[in-house]
Amino acid sequence: MSSLFLRTLREDPADAEVPSHKLLVRAGYVRRVAPGIYSWLPLGLRVLRNIEQIVREEMDAIGAQEIQFPALLPKEPYEATGRWTEYGPNLFRLKDRRGGDYLLGPTHEELFTLVVKGEYSSYKDYPVMLYQIQTKYRDEARPRAGILRGREFLMKDSYSFDLTDDGLSESYELHRDAYVRIFDRLGLEYVVVKATSGAMGGSASEEFLAVAPTGEDTYVRSPGGYAANVEAVTTPAPPAKATDGLPPAQAHHTPDTPTIESLVDFLNDEADLGRTFTAADTLKNVLVKTRQPGTAEWTLLGIGVPGDREVDMKRLEAALEPAEVALLDEADFAAHPFLVKGYIGPAALAANGVRYLVDPRIVPGTAWVTGADKPDHHVVDLVCGRDFTPDGTIEAAEVREGDPAPDGSGPLESARGIEIGHVFQLGRKYADAMQLDALGADGKPVRITMGSYGIGVSRLVAVIAEQSHDGSGLIWPRCVAPADVHVVIAGKTDEIAAGGERLAADLDAAGVRVLLDDRKATPGVKFADAELIGVPTIVVVGRGLANGVVEVKDRRSGERQEIAVESVVAHLAELTGAR
Amino acid sequence: MSSLFLRTLREDPADAEVPSHKLLVRAGYVRRVAPGIYSWLPLGLRVLRNIEQIVREEMDAIGAQEIQFPALLPKEPYEATGRWTEYGPNLFRLKDRRGGDYLLGPTHEELFTLVVKGEYSSYKDYPVMLYQIQTKYRDEARPRAGILRGREFLMKDSYSFDLTDDGLSESYELHRDAYVRIFDRLGLEYVVVKATSGAMGGSASEEFLAVAPTGEDTYVRSPGGYAANVEAVTTPAPPAKATDGLPPAQAHHTPDTPTIESLVDFLNDEADLGRTFTAADTLKNVLVKTRQPGTAEWTLLGIGVPGDREVDMKRLEAALEPAEVALLDEADFAAHPFLVKGYIGPAALAANGVRYLVDPRIVPGTAWVTGADKPDHHVVDLVCGRDFTPDGTIEAAEVREGDPAPDGSGPLESARGIEIGHVFQLGRKYADAMQLDALGADGKPVRITMGSYGIGVSRLVAVIAEQSHDGSGLIWPRCVAPADVHVVIAGKTDEIAAGGERLAADLDAAGVRVLLDDRKATPGVKFADAELIGVPTIVVVGRGLANGVVEVKDRRSGERQEIAVESVVAHLAELTGAR
Repeated sequence: MSSLFLRTLREDPADAEVPSHKLLVRAGYVRRVAPGIYSWLPLGLRVLRNIEQIVREEMDAIGAQEIQFPALLPKEPYEATGRWTEYGPNLFRLKDRRGGDYLLGPTHEELFTLVVKGEYSSYKDYPVMLYQIQTKYRDEARPRAGILRGREFLMKDSYSFDLTDDGLSESYELHRDAYVRIFDRLGLEYVVVKATSGAMGGSASEEFLAVAPTGEDTYVRSPGGYAANVEAVTTPAPPAKATDGLPPAQAHHTPDTPTIESLVDFLNDEADLGRTFTAADTLKNVLVKTRQPGTAEWTLLGIGVPGDREVDMKRLEAALEPAEVALLDEADFAAHPFLVKGYIGPAALAANGVRYLVDPRIVPGTAWVTGADKPDHHVVDLVCGRDFTPDGTIEAAEVREGDPAPDGSGPLESARGIEIGHVFQLGRKYADAMQLDALGADGKPVRITMGSYGIGVSRLVAVIAEQSHDGSGLIWPRCVAPADVHVVIAGKTDEIAAGGERLAADLDAAGVRVLLDDRKATPGVKFADAELIGVPTIVVVGRGLANGVVEVKDRRSGERQEIAVESVVAHLAELTGAR
Repeated sequence: MSSLFLRTLREDPADAEVPSHKLLVRAGYVRRVAPGIYSWLPLGLRVLRNIEQIVREEMDAIGAQEIQFPALLPKEPYEATGRWTEYGPNLFRLKDRRGGDYLLGPTHEELFTLVVKGEYSSYKDYPVMLYQIQTKYRDEARPRAGILRGREFLMKDSYSFDLTDDGLSESYELHRDAYVRIFDRLGLEYVVVKATSGAMGGSASEEFLAVAPTGEDTYVRSPGGYAANVEAVTTPAPPAKATDGLPPAQAHHTPDTPTIESLVDFLNDEADLGRTFTAADTLKNVLVKTRQPGTAEWTLLGIGVPGDREVDMKRLEAALEPAEVALLDEADFAAHPFLVKGYIGPAALAANGVRYLVDPRIVPGTAWVTGADKPDHHVVDLVCGRDFTPDGTIEAAEVREGDPAPDGSGPLESARGIEIGHVFQLGRKYADAMQLDALGADGKPVRITMGSYGIGVSRLVAVIAEQSHDGSGLIWPRCVAPADVHVVIAGKTDEIAAGGERLAADLDAAGVRVLLDDRKATPGVKFADAELIGVPTIVVVGRGLANGVVEVKDRRSGERQEIAVESVVAHLAELTGAR
């Protein structure tokens, strides 16, 4: 450490909010260069490389083959799939000296698809799984939390190419299992949640979320083990009921009741209907407009949800992906006078050809209080399947703690996590865009089906730090730690210095990775730095050396043990697995 | 190989001119994505990583510490050193979503300087050497030869930081020695040439050039071991002579002699001066204009060279670095009527305050025929030091084969090479720009002096291929080869297939890196691919297996040997150094 390029800091960086960011900067692992753009100092780079190696081993173990694409990419493949525009401002775009359009790769679906198309042609070539561990770029609107959400980051992305859906399922499971092994080896606490696939397109998809109160991702879980992204939660539909014998729908004058609350109050206080209504008895109709990527035209869409729930825009967006969604503005209402703000009902939508999608709880036979399509009027006992027929269902209503898990495993509760891995069944989206076919055994082309699998390698450094630290500093699991043993020379005598140096040399010779604190600094400074840096085992060579002992401390538990100098190398080699 | 992501090609790629480019594409090591931008397929990536590891080991061995900077960098540090503009169109520039200016790092002097400034403050912290192995970007005007000159490439760049010039010399020597070890380990044929430092600024500088007829770099060498870039060749100056007793300068009417050739012809054929003149007796004055980076103003500059030599614009540019140089256009001549085209002499330059630099051969006491500053007139016996006094010397004249080496080691001959490494003594250029000081023992700041050292890691893959191939394909040195042994199953029987697979498994268990050709293909196809791919040892498991032997072939020499199956693993483990 007297020559290591490292200066620890006593103060948290001013821009840091989460523990991993504070500690990785203070302990000298990373340094900020620009928003979301970091340099790796020697200790940080070692941790990063150790994680990278674990990821590589597990990818190799499932037969995935490592390749490497450039980060600087021409526009054309991304234009072919529409992502050149779909990515919007998240994409770093640039021009070369001849005016050609380029981008910095945010993910490499297009390139993987093209390289397989370039090399492979026959069904005999498949299946194949390829991966890379490579620097990626996304111009995040809000880079945050140090390397947790950066604009330049290291990612392992892999892709599977199969002839059949069953093949894709197998490749998907291989990856899923490899991810479990990787995150288990890293000692992470994580959940696997059902996910929507976002801008990636495709069908089955799961996310690996590290459990962390500072996480950006909200997910829900049930006591019975269900876990899903909020966007991916499905709503159990009650059974449809018969409509026979239900009271007829009836319009009522409900003055000044544009909100659900004012409507319920009016029905219960002023109207005399002989029943008590709650917000859950009302049907709230929210109007939005959508447009497909690459088109200019907006289309109206009506969303019906029980009046006791808000529309969750993130769920709505996920449900309508890849279409864009926006709320209506005054001009839209002015252009469509049949939309009576605060009193919109299914009737006007149907009469004017507006597509109408409802929450799964709105099944045939359920009766609702909803807008009557004229100011200050609502209709009561409007029965689904009798008085109105939605065009389909949509998962747009907010998910609440206590809602039942869709698999019947109990009530949902919400938790926070950090996305560390994502496995997708992409299907044929990219193969279609790039026309990736194999010549089948029968001489006919077979369209390839793909999976896409990602791990945020540099993010994992922060995630481990987030889950594994205490008030004094970082606590690295041994497999990723920058060293196995941190030897602290705690004393000014030549004997102690020589003893520490000899121990470090002996440990090194025994295959133990050592960080030796041979600086001219007080023991207090050295101990504090050792705690901050977080090497799992700390050995103090100090006054005890005169009695033939050194102190071995476990960074995580704080447990200390005096060990005889002559047996300490063997002890530590055993402990660290070096021998 | 039945599952390896590899398809070899029988045809050279259409855009390939040099052997390494043809072979690396044909053998499935790299694939082109855009001009100067390549993907690495599995075999190529292995070679790249092997080279990277050798570079890393030698850098670690001299005590350099590995860190890693981002490739996406903010403009500000590059603006502080002027390189944001100096790099011109070679720099990839882009804007982020907020309109901030960024670049893709072409080299990282600024960042290294800043990180040391950020961490270190005292003289006790120094010296330090840091390095990274990282992707770099340069928007080359003419990307060529595959990965030999790419726009995205992998480079090892390191920097030394010292308190004193002697310290810098030591750091420089450490790097130079490490580079020698690296290139020796890679089995390269190379020369170390004196170099100018180009846009990097600074003083002492050497280049490592791999000897290659396809190289872009021309250098000169002497039988006695001198080697230098043409730009760096210095001209031995003859001793100055006394001017006493030399004939006086005399103007002559020399009609229609604007060129050296026409002038010499006139002097020898028409003038009656009683002597014979050669072009070497004339003094050619070339006018250029220069401007300092970041300024708009051009300044005239006169260059005087012996009339038998041209001005070498590359040498002139290198001599004037970092100033920009341009030839005069008609407007410039019109603006300065004292410049009489074809008849410019030192007198008009001196009278009009134009700086005048001459070739080192033009020493006091030498007499010249040169322009008399009026049309159709020259002056004869114009003596340097008597009749004109240059403002200094400049290395601008062309270097010719047969010129004496500056160190007296014999006549120069020219050769071609590929730059594989570069070591510079940067000095204090960047430390000045970034104000990198250490607090000295006496409490006063000491400006740090820096060295900069680069190796083109991805380029080395091509350079090795360029130096090590034959008509059949690549021939890798073992230390960088994608495998140690290429086992070819040459035969259709189950016994032969099983024998090959068993051998591959046994070799693998013995620590030998194996590539097994278990494809359903003819032996001819397999042999051709083995030669093309270039693994140093090829083992053929074929009909001989029935007699208990396999054939072991050395890829480079072509030597074949039959070896008993029971001893082949031990033999190959020994051969490959696995044990």
